[in-house]
Amino acid sequence: MNIKLYSYWRSSASYRVRIALNLKQLEYEYVPVHLVNSGGEQKGDAYKGLNPSMLVPTFVDENEDVILNQSLAIIEYLDEKYPSESPFLPQHSLDRARIRMIAQDVCCDIQPVSNLRVLNKLKSEFNANGDAVTKWSHDVIHAGFEAIESRLGTRAGKYAYGYDVTLADICIVPQVYNALRFEVDMSKFPTIHKVYNNCQKLPAFIDAAPQNQLDAP
Amino acid sequence: MNIKLYSYWRSSASYRVRIALNLKQLEYEYVPVHLVNSGGEQKGDAYKGLNPSMLVPTFVDENEDVILNQSLAIIEYLDEKYPSESPFLPQHSLDRARIRMIAQDVCCDIQPVSNLRVLNKLKSEFNANGDAVTKWSHDVIHAGFEAIESRLGTRAGKYAYGYDVTLADICIVPQVYNALRFEVDMSKFPTIHKVYNNCQKLPAFIDAAPQNQLDAP
Repeated sequence: MNIKLYSYWRSSASYRVRIALNLKQLEYEYVPVHLVNSGGEQKGDAYKGLNPSMLVPTFVDENEDVILNQSLAIIEYLDEKYPSESPFLPQHSLDRARIRMIAQDVCCDIQPVSNLRVLNKLKSEFNANGDAVTKWSHDVIHAGFEAIESRLGTRAGKYAYGYDVTLADICIVPQVYNALRFEVDMSKFPTIHKVYNNCQKLPAFIDAAPQNQLDAP
Repeated sequence: MNIKLYSYWRSSASYRVRIALNLKQLEYEYVPVHLVNSGGEQKGDAYKGLNPSMLVPTFVDENEDVILNQSLAIIEYLDEKYPSESPFLPQHSLDRARIRMIAQDVCCDIQPVSNLRVLNKLKSEFNANGDAVTKWSHDVIHAGFEAIESRLGTRAGKYAYGYDVTLADICIVPQVYNALRFEVDMSKFPTIHKVYNNCQKLPAFIDAAPQNQLDAP
């Protein structure tokens, strides 16, 4: 298979790209990178050569000498390269901006501040215990969801921005998965929760879910 | 003036949008939001109504009922709306993806984990002192720059991606400004430093610099 995705089952950035690949109906080889075992396989020389950030995911298309990191860059690349199948962004620049805003609320304000890399750093630098890091992630996600819930406002329909699946949904769903792990009370965010539940009915989202990956325990 | 930018002089996300507005030769009203005084003006009801994330910047175009947050979403909106003046992304999807990757290395992996919001949280939750938060930011930026320096590789020219200013430069320059504040040794990152120095010669970057804003002390 030409397309490979270096992924970790529970990484929400990987989860986003899995959803995008499924929506575009692209077949790919799943290459597991275990972020915990062996001190983190992403720090090994082989993976570091592919992605010097030592983070997942990495997208490779061997047919075209393409190696990309950063989930949003990969997803927009797929959308530009395969525009006819299930577009992730509409045509009008203002709609596109509003959808990217929501995606970036997740990918810039919530996820990077509450991911495994940061939680490990809190433990090593400040001796944070399990309860403290759970509270940290909970609070970051809760604050971020308050903003997103308000921002979705009247524009949400069945999905985050109207009645088509967009980039916003691709980012929201993995973040809700994390919110549930960190015991965020989703009843406070009815619009986000509705969007999550509606997406969970779609095969592209089901097949991308962490528990359905080959490296899930 | 129709366009307003709610900004804080030293916010690197605001700094990015100021560069983009200048490159597009758009006039705008600068509305200062002080992130430190009065417990953080961004938390006040007026600003929260405009941007429920309580972060800067917020971009407003009163002519078109446009209110946008998230620097990358704003910058791509400006690029789509004003494509002829100084495009931030080239046409080919792979070039676009590689440039967005570098932008997101800054905006997703470095800046959100080392900004004022996180440093304040480290102080309040883990009683971190000044030296500890400086070390935290230094280390996050240093690790991020190692990845970006490697990724720029042979593609950098005068600027981060060849010989035209792109979205990558718009994100790198404010991050270098922060790196210098947190005493990152830039001699370890010669390509990033070269790009920074070349951009610093351009009026759009000079006029956007923190010390040249009306709310700079």
